[in-house]
Amino acid sequence: MNTIEPEKSFRLKVWELVESVPDKEEPKRIHDAVDWFMMTLIALNVLAVILETVETINLEYSAYFFAFEVFSVICFTIEYLVRLWACTSQVKFARPFWGRIRFIFTPMAIIDLIAILPFYLTFLHVDMRFVRTLRLFRLFRLFKLMRYSHSLTLFGNVLRNKKEELLITAAIMLVLIILTSSFIYFAEHEAQPDKFTDIPTSMWWAIVTLTTVGYGDVFPVTPLGKFFAGIIAVLGIGMFALPTGILGASFVEEIDRLKRRETCTCPHCGEVIEQD
Amino acid sequence: MNTIEPEKSFRLKVWELVESVPDKEEPKRIHDAVDWFMMTLIALNVLAVILETVETINLEYSAYFFAFEVFSVICFTIEYLVRLWACTSQVKFARPFWGRIRFIFTPMAIIDLIAILPFYLTFLHVDMRFVRTLRLFRLFRLFKLMRYSHSLTLFGNVLRNKKEELLITAAIMLVLIILTSSFIYFAEHEAQPDKFTDIPTSMWWAIVTLTTVGYGDVFPVTPLGKFFAGIIAVLGIGMFALPTGILGASFVEEIDRLKRRETCTCPHCGEVIEQD
Amino acid sequence: MNTIEPEKSFRLKVWELVESVPDKEEPKRIHDAVDWFMMTLIALNVLAVILETVETINLEYSAYFFAFEVFSVICFTIEYLVRLWACTSQVKFARPFWGRIRFIFTPMAIIDLIAILPFYLTFLHVDMRFVRTLRLFRLFRLFKLMRYSHSLTLFGNVLRNKKEELLITAAIMLVLIILTSSFIYFAEHEAQPDKFTDIPTSMWWAIVTLTTVGYGDVFPVTPLGKFFAGIIAVLGIGMFALPTGILGASFVEEIDRLKRRETCTCPHCGEVIEQD
Amino acid sequence: MNTIEPEKSFRLKVWELVESVPDKEEPKRIHDAVDWFMMTLIALNVLAVILETVETINLEYSAYFFAFEVFSVICFTIEYLVRLWACTSQVKFARPFWGRIRFIFTPMAIIDLIAILPFYLTFLHVDMRFVRTLRLFRLFRLFKLMRYSHSLTLFGNVLRNKKEELLITAAIMLVLIILTSSFIYFAEHEAQPDKFTDIPTSMWWAIVTLTTVGYGDVFPVTPLGKFFAGIIAVLGIGMFALPTGILGASFVEEIDRLKRRETCTCPHCGEVIEQD
Repeated sequence: MNTIEPEKSFRLKVWELVESVPDKEEPKRIHDAVDWFMMTLIALNVLAVILETVETINLEYSAYFFAFEVFSVICFTIEYLVRLWACTSQVKFARPFWGRIRFIFTPMAIIDLIAILPFYLTFLHVDMRFVRTLRLFRLFRLFKLMRYSHSLTLFGNVLRNKKEELLITAAIMLVLIILTSSFIYFAEHEAQPDKFTDIPTSMWWAIVTLTTVGYGDVFPVTPLGKFFAGIIAVLGIGMFALPTGILGASFVEEIDRLKRRETCTCPHCGEVIEQD
Repeated sequence: MNTIEPEKSFRLKVWELVESVPDKEEPKRIHDAVDWFMMTLIALNVLAVILETVETINLEYSAYFFAFEVFSVICFTIEYLVRLWACTSQVKFARPFWGRIRFIFTPMAIIDLIAILPFYLTFLHVDMRFVRTLRLFRLFRLFKLMRYSHSLTLFGNVLRNKKEELLITAAIMLVLIILTSSFIYFAEHEAQPDKFTDIPTSMWWAIVTLTTVGYGDVFPVTPLGKFFAGIIAVLGIGMFALPTGILGASFVEEIDRLKRRETCTCPHCGEVIEQD
Repeated sequence: MNTIEPEKSFRLKVWELVESVPDKEEPKRIHDAVDWFMMTLIALNVLAVILETVETINLEYSAYFFAFEVFSVICFTIEYLVRLWACTSQVKFARPFWGRIRFIFTPMAIIDLIAILPFYLTFLHVDMRFVRTLRLFRLFRLFKLMRYSHSLTLFGNVLRNKKEELLITAAIMLVLIILTSSFIYFAEHEAQPDKFTDIPTSMWWAIVTLTTVGYGDVFPVTPLGKFFAGIIAVLGIGMFALPTGILGASFVEEIDRLKRRETCTCPHCGEVIEQD
Repeated sequence: MNTIEPEKSFRLKVWELVESVPDKEEPKRIHDAVDWFMMTLIALNVLAVILETVETINLEYSAYFFAFEVFSVICFTIEYLVRLWACTSQVKFARPFWGRIRFIFTPMAIIDLIAILPFYLTFLHVDMRFVRTLRLFRLFRLFKLMRYSHSLTLFGNVLRNKKEELLITAAIMLVLIILTSSFIYFAEHEAQPDKFTDIPTSMWWAIVTLTTVGYGDVFPVTPLGKFFAGIIAVLGIGMFALPTGILGASFVEEIDRLKRRETCTCPHCGEVIEQD
């Protein structure tokens, strides 16, 4: 985190507060309080979105839900504006106007905006269906957690480390789905034209089978279809479980690396050494 | 295990007997006999609870079941009282009154109490439904096995070692379930209002799909729902299989560590060395 | 393989032939021919059992099936008698009478007997149901492959190496199945008395769910049952996939060990060294 | 790649272009352009085959589909003829006539032929069913990707490295399927003669269960069948997940090896060293 001022300005201090940058000089208590407040608010918001869809609860407590929504949006709007004001303390966003424009288009800032925008948009439109859709958009607030949750950032690292493996597996999966759905379409189209209407429709079967979910809403009935499905099930399923193996190993490694880093102290001065 | 007396009192010997503390001086035979008697009794109790729910068996042998239940409760009550009497031999519970109170609230003592309490409570209440529920509580006796079974304690260690990984995975799972159920609710609510009534209801679908159980009682029918479910099935399933990979690796490690420890002997004196 | 004669007798040579003991002096061709003949015969026998159950095929070719069965039984009977005659060449079974009795009760000899006995028993009984059952017993011939197939013996080694881990996992699985089926019985018995009649019946649901098969013939319908089933699905499934992880790792290790052993040659004399 | 001319002829240059052989002297841009054009064309072709099966799309855009098909076949035919002309630049296929015959029967050349032949065959036959089958054969064009996609070749390597393990697992799977389907046939044939008609039919159930797909179209209903299916589900499922574990580990290894190779440079001259 490169700062433009050698001495910390108030703007920078505010920035470090909302971005949860650890700071030895400042009291840790305020930082932690802000973090916990935001995480609790996000969690309660997600809970509210979930409970609002339950009709009986929604009817009875709609006033409370609305009040909480207004309170949340105020908090999140203040948070957004504070970030927008404080971002110029960073070299990257230093220029007052263009720096802020640049900040607005960072992924996390977009998520922050999506989290509050639906509320303001509901005042413009009155189409109920649209409003209901917007209400679900509030779930994007869940992604705000990424900023605060170390678990999720750690998991992001794992995904990034194994990007290559995952992309290759995804390519093989795609080829498998295309081939499987084409063959089953060929084998079953005439016997069950309503279920294996075309190849895109058959892909539903292919995915449900290859992931071993197997709802049982579509399955082959002809001997050829069953024979083919049996072979593909035995051969193909391994492919769809590959990412798990890849991620699992990488996950354990990553956490081991973190643990080692945390406990490694210099034998001379006793200070913790941050290794990579 | 810290004891307050330098020479073993009778109280301490009894304590070590019921707690399966290995003791070189005492004959091992009595210890083993107590262990095996308790394990067999617990196993038979669990079998009895299972068989009692089968109506034909229950009707014919209810007298035997009751007799066995009385015998078991007497055994378990004696065991509980013996523990309560002997626990003061330990430094932790040394004070006659408060030490025993403290002992009563240890997890294993609570399980011991739950295992016998339902029997006595049935004499107070006569509400059949309540009695039936209490009867199932006898299954808590299964947890008493933990004290005797090394397999279960070993597995407990594995869980403790990988606590961090499992918590992170649990957090990711929760986020996934919330997002998945919300999206499917949005896509399918109008087409199947009885099956995707609200987000909490949709969570049932999300869990059944992400764990690949796929009963087939709920599944998406709209193209949007199927498209989304297909993507989530391919991407999300890996997350739910992660704990297996993490636990599996840790499990093999833990047993390897135990094996090495058991066979490691000092080359000079021939004594077994307990390494960590 | 300890032999009682310093020079190979004819009896010992025959024994080594039917037991596929590698022998440098003897031409390898005869050994291989016997092995391949037996393996092909077993494979064809299994195929015959499978095809005989298909009514149309059975009606048309029953004469051929019977002829092949008679031929197979003659071969297997000769093999059994040859083994019985030759077994005294081994130290273990050296005594003419009691050695042979001892040989008869070795696991592989029992399988050999089960493979031929049903044929002779069909002449005694004429009860059709009994005959049909006996016919399936011919599938035990498949186990005769173990003697010849290196894959299966290798897999047997893997199972033996990880016996401890597998036993612990089995114990945990059993505890999980008992607890799961008891809780679901408690939650669903009243809503679906025909599907969750008693705990043993509920175990079917528990296994189908915990293994993620999920046929959809039984599933919880009450909110409590769904809530509980959701939690158990997320937590319990990992346990049932554990053996796979344990076996998979051990399997790869075992084959690596074999490969290394095969390719390790002494740098001085050039001979292959068999390491452990 | 052994070439017969010391100086690169035009024929060899063309060969290296269509075979994507990297070449330092030639501008890399033309190579990349050819690669990308072919990959895009193949991807669009696969998309066209998929979309053509959707009736509404096919009816409206059939003319475009046909035009694109003609264009594709022209491109693929030119590619095939160019390869056929240029292949003599290689030692293996150097002889003008027999070298080309030999080239035609290489696996990739056969795939190339299958990718274009159906188009020409549709002019000979007019049987609609046959034409429709041929149309699906165009999906073989997907396999042409193997030549260009490094992901797929890498995955091929992984499969080749673990051939032995996979073959052993396949053998165990086959034995398991045969045993499982025979036992369930024995247990369920009388209760559900339409679903467990014979052993080959029961194999469908065995595969659907052992892979944990569990559609729910066939499942045991008798207590014996359920008991047996429960045991087989717990024991057998591990076997079917084994290949995943084996492939997953090998996959990660192979990519690690590639990464290390790419980054390994000689400390003296700074050149990249290709290790094995």
